[in-house]
This record gives sequence, C-alpha cells and structure tokens, in this order.
Amino acid sequence: MPNIRRFSVSLEKDLSGQFDLLIKQKKCNSRSEAFRKLIKQELIQEEWLKGRETAGAIVLVYDHHKRELLNKIMHIQHDYSGVILSTQHVHLDHHNCLEVIIIKGKPREVQGLRDKLKIIRGIKCSSLAMASTGKEIP
Amino acid sequence: MPNIRRFSVSLEKDLSGQFDLLIKQKKCNSRSEAFRKLIKQELIQEEWLKGRETAGAIVLVYDHHKRELLNKIMHIQHDYSGVILSTQHVHLDHHNCLEVIIIKGKPREVQGLRDKLKIIRGIKCSSLAMASTGKEIP
Amino acid sequence: MPNIRRFSVSLEKDLSGQFDLLIKQKKCNSRSEAFRKLIKQELIQEEWLKGRETAGAIVLVYDHHKRELLNKIMHIQHDYSGVILSTQHVHLDHHNCLEVIIIKGKPREVQGLRDKLKIIRGIKCSSLAMASTGKEIP
Amino acid sequence: MPNIRRFSVSLEKDLSGQFDLLIKQKKCNSRSEAFRKLIKQELIQEEWLKGRETAGAIVLVYDHHKRELLNKIMHIQHDYSGVILSTQHVHLDHHNCLEVIIIKGKPREVQGLRDKLKIIRGIKCSSLAMASTGKEIP
Repeated sequence: MPNIRRFSVSLEKDLSGQFDLLIKQKKCNSRSEAFRKLIKQELIQEEWLKGRETAGAIVLVYDHHKRELLNKIMHIQHDYSGVILSTQHVHLDHHNCLEVIIIKGKPREVQGLRDKLKIIRGIKCSSLAMASTGKEIP
Repeated sequence: MPNIRRFSVSLEKDLSGQFDLLIKQKKCNSRSEAFRKLIKQELIQEEWLKGRETAGAIVLVYDHHKRELLNKIMHIQHDYSGVILSTQHVHLDHHNCLEVIIIKGKPREVQGLRDKLKIIRGIKCSSLAMASTGKEIP
Repeated sequence: MPNIRRFSVSLEKDLSGQFDLLIKQKKCNSRSEAFRKLIKQELIQEEWLKGRETAGAIVLVYDHHKRELLNKIMHIQHDYSGVILSTQHVHLDHHNCLEVIIIKGKPREVQGLRDKLKIIRGIKCSSLAMASTGKEIP
Repeated sequence: MPNIRRFSVSLEKDLSGQFDLLIKQKKCNSRSEAFRKLIKQELIQEEWLKGRETAGAIVLVYDHHKRELLNKIMHIQHDYSGVILSTQHVHLDHHNCLEVIIIKGKPREVQGLRDKLKIIRGIKCSSLAMASTGKEIP
C-alpha cells in the first residue's frame, strides 16, 4: 500500500500495557487503529478551536404548540441559509419535537445561529454536536 | 393565565445589573425568559447525569469509499434499533459523508452505540449532541 | 437592605415545580439563591469565552524522578511569572507529585502556559480549573 | 533501556502529515512523546468515568466579608477530611479570595464535596480540575 507510512513508536512498558488494556476494553482492532482515532480526535478539536471551516449538527427540542415558535425558527434559519445544509424533524410525542439542523461553516457562524435559536421562547433545548467536514481529516 | 406561577426573586444590585447586561447581549426578551432558559439547561444536564430516558443525536463523518464501512455502520445500527429513531445522510463532498443518527433512550445505551460506531475503521468523527425528550422539561 | 433589588419572575407551573425539586435535591436554601448560582455560572463562562481577565488553577501530576523535569517546569513558570500567583506542591506517593499553579490573567495566556507545561516529557496530566477573579461576579 | 517497548505503527500518509504538523505547532519533541500524551489523556478520562481513585483540585472564589461564609466552608471541609489533602488561599483583591482544595478520592466523593461547597451563599465560583493520582498513569 503506497499511501501508508510506517514508523516505530517507543513507549514505557507500563504505559504500553495500559494502552493495550484500553484497546481491548474498547474492542478496537489494533494499536495503529487506536492511534488513528486519537489523532483524528485531536485534529477535530483543533478545527473548532482555530475557527476553520467545520460541520456538525444543532439539535433543538420544543413544543410545536407554542404560538409563533415554528415561524420564528424558520425565520432565523433563513438568515443562516449559507450555513445550513439540511434539517430533519422527529415527533417525539404529542407535544415534543426534535429537530436536527445540519450545519457547515465557521465555528463562529454556527455559534451565532445556535445563540439565536436558543433564546426563542419555547425552545427547551439547543445542543451542538461538533463534528467536521472531514476534508482535513484523512 | 392559570398555569403560570409568579414569585419574587431578590438579587444584589450588582448581580442584577450584570444579569441584565447579559440578557441584552444575548438579545433575550425578558428576565423571566432568561431564568427559564437557565433552569431548563440545568434540568437537561441532570437528565443525562441521572441516567433518565433522554434524546439527542450522534453525528458521524466518514469516507464512504472505505471498504465495508457502510455495512458495518448499518449492522451496528440494527443492534440498537430500539434506541435509534431515524437517520439522515448528507454528502459533504465527493468523499465525505455526514450522517446524523437521532436517538432516544438511556444515556448508557446511547453511549454504548456511540462507542461501537467510534471504533469502526474509517470513521473520522463521532460526536454527540445531548438533548432531551422534552417530557420532563416544561 | 439597600443594595438588594427585588423583582418578580413568572414561570410555568410545571417548570417551577421541577425547579423546586432540583433546589431540594441540591439542598439549596432558596429560589433566589439558586438563581444567583445559575447567573454566576453563566457570567464566569462568558468571562472565559470573551477573553477577559480571569483566574483559576492548573494542576500538574508528574513523577519527580524524571531527569530534568523539575528544572523544565520551573523554567517555564518563570517565563509566565506575570500570570502565576503562587504554587503548591503535594507528594501523592513515593513517585507522584501533584502541583497546583494558581493563575490570574487572560484566558489566552493561561492556555499558553498550560500548553507549554503539557508537552514536557514526564508530565502525566495537566488539568485546568476555570474560575474567576470575582471582580465582575457580585 | 529495558523498560521501553518498541513497536511499529502504520498511518495513512495524509494523517501522518497532519499529525506531524500538529506536533510541530505544539512544539512537541517527537512522535513517541505525542502518542504518550494522547494515551495518558485517555487513561485519565477513563479514571474519572470508571469511578476509580483519582486526584485533582476544587477552586473556590468568594468574598470573605460575607457573614459566616468562612465557617461554613471550614465546616464542610472537615466532613470531607478523608478526601482533602491540603488547601491554599490567595487574596485576589480586598474582597475576593481564591481557595484551592487539593483532593484525592473517588470521583463521587469529590463531586459530593464540590456540590456542598457550591451551594453556600456567597460562593461565586466552584470549579474542578480533574487530574489523577498518577499511580495508574506510567
């Protein structure tokens, strides 16, 4: 495989033992795979911290019976149409809706959208999953 | 409005001033509304900490070209069909997919599903948005 | 009490009930006190997000037998003497030390100091408690 | 060095390139050292999640002029004397004190202590740095 690079790592025996235990518990396939996961996790954290383009999802929970709530959510989403890729709606029960807004953009824009949605009266919860565009994560 | 309860709160003048400033910056409508948000935030945190039934979304980012990746993701999701409400898929670019899995269940089950997805080779990112079923959040 | 301001808050009955339950569980004295805590928490978060002067502590854990480790830690601390208020050292066992570095400064400087300490070989852990100078938190 | 174990890791070229860049930015000495940091970080997270014995610090900020505040803090600390290793006190300004309480114990006990301190009237901030006893982190 030409696009694979191999290099050696030296770990103290104790640390290596602890690491192998952790891999086993998490049912990870190999040390290399475990290292890949750790590196990717770190790269995504940097993506958000450094303000680079990224992706993720905002999850809203609300009671759709609240007056004007749906209109307000829709209105704000249109102001951020450049950041929103798509939305999905689930009816949790007779009252409660869960709406997922998939976003792609700078962390600051995403945070701006979330702040605007958060303060709407009737929004019970606005939660953010910080993922990635995957572009810079091989 | 019969289902509204009114009571008085006493705050030190300085704290009350700082709070009003914060409300203004966040463009919140009223003190009552700001208090509601703070309480709801706290209740949702408790929901997750106490292991009560909750809802949210897991966001995966992956390269769909990776061999067997899609089958593995599908296979695990079927093991957790009791927790998964629906999924949504977005093509970020030629290589990268973002998949949102909407979940409802105990925090432990949600975490179990996430851990299993996380270690699949080729998954670049698995992020969790901790929301709520809304049932206990008036 | 002249420096106390009183105002009324209206909450939905359900929400108010949930809030009272939470207060009882946490053994908080009164609704006003619970509101004060929630507001202060929010103000401190803003302090760190907005990059204002703040305070807190960096906690290091290391094996003091590691060659040159103590010198390196000392050296870096001197570069950041403007940010460090004091340090405290605890011998956890024959090998392990826990050192607390109390800091006061801009979040960016604090993060810079932490990053430099983190990468020293032999440092097992570098953890940050984000507190406050208290100045802006009445 | 007899207690060092060497093994090879294979990474995709792109990922390895990104990782080397990250190492350079963070001024880390070598790939092996960077891997050690990532593993240790993961082990400490597990320590707290799994409820094993651990160590860290609680940071309090308060105005020492508040009536009865010091007595209350002292009283609670004595109830948790089995968890508290030492405390340190810094005078931030005429009003504000920052107190660091170094703790060693199960995460649940530490959280219990923190909750009790948090609700004392006059406590402006109670923040936790989750570190480690270092015993299980080679």
